[in-house]
Amino acid sequence: MLLEKLHWRYATKKFDATKVVSEDKVDRILEAVRLAPTSSGLQPFELIVVSNAELREKMKPIASNQGQVVDGSHMVVFAAWDNYTEERINMMFDLVNEERGLVNEGWEAYRKFILSTYPPRDPEVNYQHAARQAYIGLGIGLTAAAFEQVDATPMEGFNPDQLDELLGLRARGLRSVAIMALGYREAAGDWLVDLKKVRRPSEQFITKVA
Amino acid sequence: MLLEKLHWRYATKKFDATKVVSEDKVDRILEAVRLAPTSSGLQPFELIVVSNAELREKMKPIASNQGQVVDGSHMVVFAAWDNYTEERINMMFDLVNEERGLVNEGWEAYRKFILSTYPPRDPEVNYQHAARQAYIGLGIGLTAAAFEQVDATPMEGFNPDQLDELLGLRARGLRSVAIMALGYREAAGDWLVDLKKVRRPSEQFITKVA
Repeated sequence: MLLEKLHWRYATKKFDATKVVSEDKVDRILEAVRLAPTSSGLQPFELIVVSNAELREKMKPIASNQGQVVDGSHMVVFAAWDNYTEERINMMFDLVNEERGLVNEGWEAYRKFILSTYPPRDPEVNYQHAARQAYIGLGIGLTAAAFEQVDATPMEGFNPDQLDELLGLRARGLRSVAIMALGYREAAGDWLVDLKKVRRPSEQFITKVA
Repeated sequence: MLLEKLHWRYATKKFDATKVVSEDKVDRILEAVRLAPTSSGLQPFELIVVSNAELREKMKPIASNQGQVVDGSHMVVFAAWDNYTEERINMMFDLVNEERGLVNEGWEAYRKFILSTYPPRDPEVNYQHAARQAYIGLGIGLTAAAFEQVDATPMEGFNPDQLDELLGLRARGLRSVAIMALGYREAAGDWLVDLKKVRRPSEQFITKVA
């Protein structure tokens, strides 16, 4: 079931510009990303979902003029926290306590450990760690799109500083790390659609120590 | 369907040490990771799957003495490439040509672009990029485990240098970035199993620009 979906999906190179992914499908894809596990449950990223056509036009030159940005209907920008701050860490631990209606000694000790470890680190180390968590969400988002039979393209080929500027991300303490373009394939114009999906054979990818 | 699976899963804190995940389930989970999309299709990581009990005992102190390492049956170590080299890039582009049975001009131009861009960069930048790709696989692996009704714990709380040493990863040009522990929950001993899954509400996680 899942494997079929993973075989079905591919990094769509040409979207049909006349087709729009419905909001209910988009919302289920976003919900899957929201449910993604992250380190210590901090969810150190946010999603900026750009369907506005004018804004997508402005994103295109920033994204190496890749056509998916304007031909797809929704650009989901994964934006990682630029740093782990005390405020952000406490926000998430407080939310957990509030939602669970309890304060747990072990959990509070863990909060102290994270507070004593993350904020003093180099912000770049923290940002890199946050960015990795965003990629867990990206993996799940791409899988969720396949379950909705929505085509998706994971994209890194953009200028992050320029995209941050365009979307006002730095002021929010965020840095763009990847884009998931959503839309529907235009098979006739897509050079990749009929080509074989290539992965290294298991023997070159997996080592079992039994 | 997918959302149900994501609600079902949680970062298992206590595995039942008497239960072993069957090899066919493990293999389907690994296959999902193998199918994960990665930047330029380079698959810049490998999986080391440790079921050997003696080796898992040795991993435990390296992983902050977390019990999952010995109580789970399979530890899937995600090990990212330590660098993008010409050899690795050519290996993947050659494999694609071989599998597709064609040499494409655009694809060869893209190979040249990657060859001129990645290997000259700081290896640390390349490693960080590779590590992010591994996390796409981690997100998909955790999802795949849920589809198999196998419990899983994503783990970063280990000493990567010591784990690299134990598994001989550096000599293979690999660096451990995350562990996915697989097994079956022992609900009675798991403090997290009945607690609510907490995520930030959509309004604090998603910004739509329509």
